[in-house]
Amino acid sequence: MKILAVLYNGFKAAKAEPRLLGTVENELGLRPYLESLGHEFYVTSDKEGPQSEFQKHIVDADILITTPFHPGYLTRPIMEKAKNLKLCVTAGVGSDHVDINAAVDHKIQVLEVTGSNVTSVAEHVVMSILNLVRNFVPAHEMIERGEWQVSDIARNAFDLEGKTVGTIGAGRIGYRVLQRLVPFDCKELLYFDYASLSAEREQAVGARRINDLQEFVSKCDVVTVNAPLHDGTRGLINKKLLSHFKKGAWLVNTARGAICEADDVAEALKSGHLNGYAGDVWNVQPAPKDHPWRQMKNPLGGGNGMTPHYSGTTLDAQARYAAGTKTILQNYFEGKPQNPADVIVGVGKVESASYGQR
Amino acid sequence: MKILAVLYNGFKAAKAEPRLLGTVENELGLRPYLESLGHEFYVTSDKEGPQSEFQKHIVDADILITTPFHPGYLTRPIMEKAKNLKLCVTAGVGSDHVDINAAVDHKIQVLEVTGSNVTSVAEHVVMSILNLVRNFVPAHEMIERGEWQVSDIARNAFDLEGKTVGTIGAGRIGYRVLQRLVPFDCKELLYFDYASLSAEREQAVGARRINDLQEFVSKCDVVTVNAPLHDGTRGLINKKLLSHFKKGAWLVNTARGAICEADDVAEALKSGHLNGYAGDVWNVQPAPKDHPWRQMKNPLGGGNGMTPHYSGTTLDAQARYAAGTKTILQNYFEGKPQNPADVIVGVGKVESASYGQR
Repeated sequence: MKILAVLYNGFKAAKAEPRLLGTVENELGLRPYLESLGHEFYVTSDKEGPQSEFQKHIVDADILITTPFHPGYLTRPIMEKAKNLKLCVTAGVGSDHVDINAAVDHKIQVLEVTGSNVTSVAEHVVMSILNLVRNFVPAHEMIERGEWQVSDIARNAFDLEGKTVGTIGAGRIGYRVLQRLVPFDCKELLYFDYASLSAEREQAVGARRINDLQEFVSKCDVVTVNAPLHDGTRGLINKKLLSHFKKGAWLVNTARGAICEADDVAEALKSGHLNGYAGDVWNVQPAPKDHPWRQMKNPLGGGNGMTPHYSGTTLDAQARYAAGTKTILQNYFEGKPQNPADVIVGVGKVESASYGQR
Repeated sequence: MKILAVLYNGFKAAKAEPRLLGTVENELGLRPYLESLGHEFYVTSDKEGPQSEFQKHIVDADILITTPFHPGYLTRPIMEKAKNLKLCVTAGVGSDHVDINAAVDHKIQVLEVTGSNVTSVAEHVVMSILNLVRNFVPAHEMIERGEWQVSDIARNAFDLEGKTVGTIGAGRIGYRVLQRLVPFDCKELLYFDYASLSAEREQAVGARRINDLQEFVSKCDVVTVNAPLHDGTRGLINKKLLSHFKKGAWLVNTARGAICEADDVAEALKSGHLNGYAGDVWNVQPAPKDHPWRQMKNPLGGGNGMTPHYSGTTLDAQARYAAGTKTILQNYFEGKPQNPADVIVGVGKVESASYGQR
């Protein structure tokens, strides 16, 4: 078989750090295994446009492996050219780079490595909440500049204790965020989702569901987005919904950049209606140099906690998603059943409700 | 009575933000109360040297109020000049700016507002641990610079899950740190302290005591310092102890800067023996422009999570310690008993073991 992987470049870092498995250089550690079975294995980071290595090799590839950090976008037109394609594996979690309906039509299975990095992302969420609420970035930058003026930091620093935190989405990541927030003595933990958690799981984290999104955001000091990107969530956080946020609320989005309207968020931060915005996902990745989220600040000069998309690709996460990708391939080659939680699209049918296909 | 307060300057910020209570401008909100009782109230930030307002007014003050963020240092020679001084109140937690033995000898009571900001500091510790382990600062700075190279961040980003975290000191702050770490699924939570927690409190956080400090640090991926500064902890973390740390460990100190030897820490970070150092306390405050902790980095250019000393002076904390200071003054004026947990030194005797006076 021909196996194509679209990964990000690691350059010098990947040569110096062999645990950077998810890079073009280190190939998820799969080459010895795949070549021992006689498969062809192509790895590239070149993924944009019809002349890209991705589009050149996809036409006769049997299997595509890619990551959410630097995805090869598997659109319907590309699937129509990919006559041999039978399996698409996401090395990580989040398969919105695949047109799910088209994959069903083309009988292309879509699998991801469930659980490989959901904890990594949940940790990034809690870190980002604390950084915004406690005003960390301006404080650190003051030290780097050689200055010291506690009052300029303290005037916009708060405790997480006593605040209301809500998650849009209480699934694999959102629920882990709630679990990690329990000991912080928040005023209340809330969630918005299309279904309720079981009573047992609600009680375990002391969280309450709010059915109406506008009501939900109006109650939260901190809103965190932990939902997949699909037609129902694209642009969900826009000017209209932001107008229902509390003045001075903090927003953390490590889900997908396109769930927020980029310009609306930037405007809300600049006006001070949002006190902070943090996350590692962008509507375009890599984010262009002039993306408004790079430099946007609140009126006090802080409130920006952005990073490149890396929360799910810590070295610990890379070890897990590389191993998980190999397991999925082994199951596939040997005709063994896959872990059901990993299956987004089976042969000709959607298995996961995560992408709004119910 | 004459009451003297030494607080930090808030300048414009304090005028714009009345919740900045702990500033010279906003005077802990105490002036109307104190003047209604006919007391004199002097407030200053000028505290260094014999010509300072602090040393000028202390000679006939009855009560001194100060904070750990910008303390008036109450040394034995100053107490000898302060003939009327009967009470010293720390608006916050941490009274190492007072010579405890000299206060006993001079029958000066020393009180602090227990609990007013211990949660604030514990949150700062957890935030700092996540920032170091997950490599946040270089990631954010990459975005600010207009760049995008995930592998340069990921190569030194890890999950907190599965790591061993230990606290030096499991008191009011250290124990709150342990509580907040419980859901992060660390490999193990450890503590080093002069006494054991009760079995019940140990079990509640799943922490284990290690009696030997060298053995303790050698087991930890993350060490956090949550102990008071006294003769037994000054310079505790020095070159010798650092040599027993795991290579690549992270160190967070929000207790007091002088518990660490500044140059030894900077050298350990530069060599990569420490992968990161974060905290908000410095051996001199305000830290001079050329303090080595401002610019020190690990060999990959990251690992610095320093801020000015503000973790315990969030707006939420200021509300609590301003209210707590007023309560201590009320009790004193009205001859009512103080909250025993607030009393570091009673009349002529030490009440708290926290400052190594047992």
